[in-house]
Amino acid sequence: MSQRTGILIVVSGPSGSGKTTLCRRLADEGEARYSTSCTTRNPRPGEVDGRDYHFLSREQFVEKREAGEFLESAEVHGNLYGTLKYEVTGHLENGTDVVMDLDVQGAAQVRACADAAIRLSAVDLFVMPAGNDELLARLSGRGTDTAEVIDLRMKNALEEICQWPQYSYRLLSGTQEEDFSRFKALVVAERMRVSRLTQA
Amino acid sequence: MSQRTGILIVVSGPSGSGKTTLCRRLADEGEARYSTSCTTRNPRPGEVDGRDYHFLSREQFVEKREAGEFLESAEVHGNLYGTLKYEVTGHLENGTDVVMDLDVQGAAQVRACADAAIRLSAVDLFVMPAGNDELLARLSGRGTDTAEVIDLRMKNALEEICQWPQYSYRLLSGTQEEDFSRFKALVVAERMRVSRLTQA
Repeated sequence: MSQRTGILIVVSGPSGSGKTTLCRRLADEGEARYSTSCTTRNPRPGEVDGRDYHFLSREQFVEKREAGEFLESAEVHGNLYGTLKYEVTGHLENGTDVVMDLDVQGAAQVRACADAAIRLSAVDLFVMPAGNDELLARLSGRGTDTAEVIDLRMKNALEEICQWPQYSYRLLSGTQEEDFSRFKALVVAERMRVSRLTQA
Repeated sequence: MSQRTGILIVVSGPSGSGKTTLCRRLADEGEARYSTSCTTRNPRPGEVDGRDYHFLSREQFVEKREAGEFLESAEVHGNLYGTLKYEVTGHLENGTDVVMDLDVQGAAQVRACADAAIRLSAVDLFVMPAGNDELLARLSGRGTDTAEVIDLRMKNALEEICQWPQYSYRLLSGTQEEDFSRFKALVVAERMRVSRLTQA
């Protein structure tokens, strides 16, 4: 009977779409390993270095990027974000599924990744907020940002939303439970995908 | 927001793999419409014409086949089986998912169907029994067939099993509940597939 390599589960969606919650919960339930990103932005209250992000200075980030250590990296809202390769590859080879939330630039880089093993292991999902009002409510609801920051996020969110046809799957956001149930269904289905079973 | 057309869910697996139970239950739960096949074999005790199969004479079957009324048809164990196009196409156009269990020949015909709308709407799953002992137990367990018939089915089953890499998904059979849960996950995931959303 054939084995399978791990699935690289990439989740995108505008800020406030709940994508991080989906990824975290999948990891918390032991279904996948959460890949912690690097960022140059400042930690928000309560965020822990190494758990929520690897917080790097711009210099540290650029140095790693030039050394080719990143699987993907992107500049979003004026800050650098990226995923280190070592956070991903070993787990995939061992058959462990890896989940990460990426912005649309990062997801596009995974889709175009020169490393075929990574590219073929990946599946991507775009989480679509139910409507603009809902999105605005979620963006505002975080309560830690100024109106200016919220406006910028809203504009970026609407630009990101246009990218959904590039993805394999689209989840139209409902309740948190509905969203997670559908997300998990996607993972269960992908584990049965024959192309993953025969490529090993 | 984009609409989607129905999914044509094709399930194969050796006789005794439980594929029909999976399909029936999906339909019973209102998730899809069960497509009733035609057959020239004799009804088993308890089988109802029009529900379990459309029971046709060989002459009736061949006549419909020559009139091009079949989406797929195949000869299995010396009997003819087939799906009438009208059982499928209207429902798919209306956005209703259709589920059917087909042997490996029938599934290959759907995969190669000249009608692109049908071909692109289809997704197929191979249900793989956990082992040969398990398979033999299921084949024998039906209790209505002779040893000779069981032997023939076992031989055919092993030949069919080699076809699983042709399918999109493979389900390694566990308990009936596990199997159905995974089957349903596949359907939920396919409904989120972007290629179905954009083709409408």
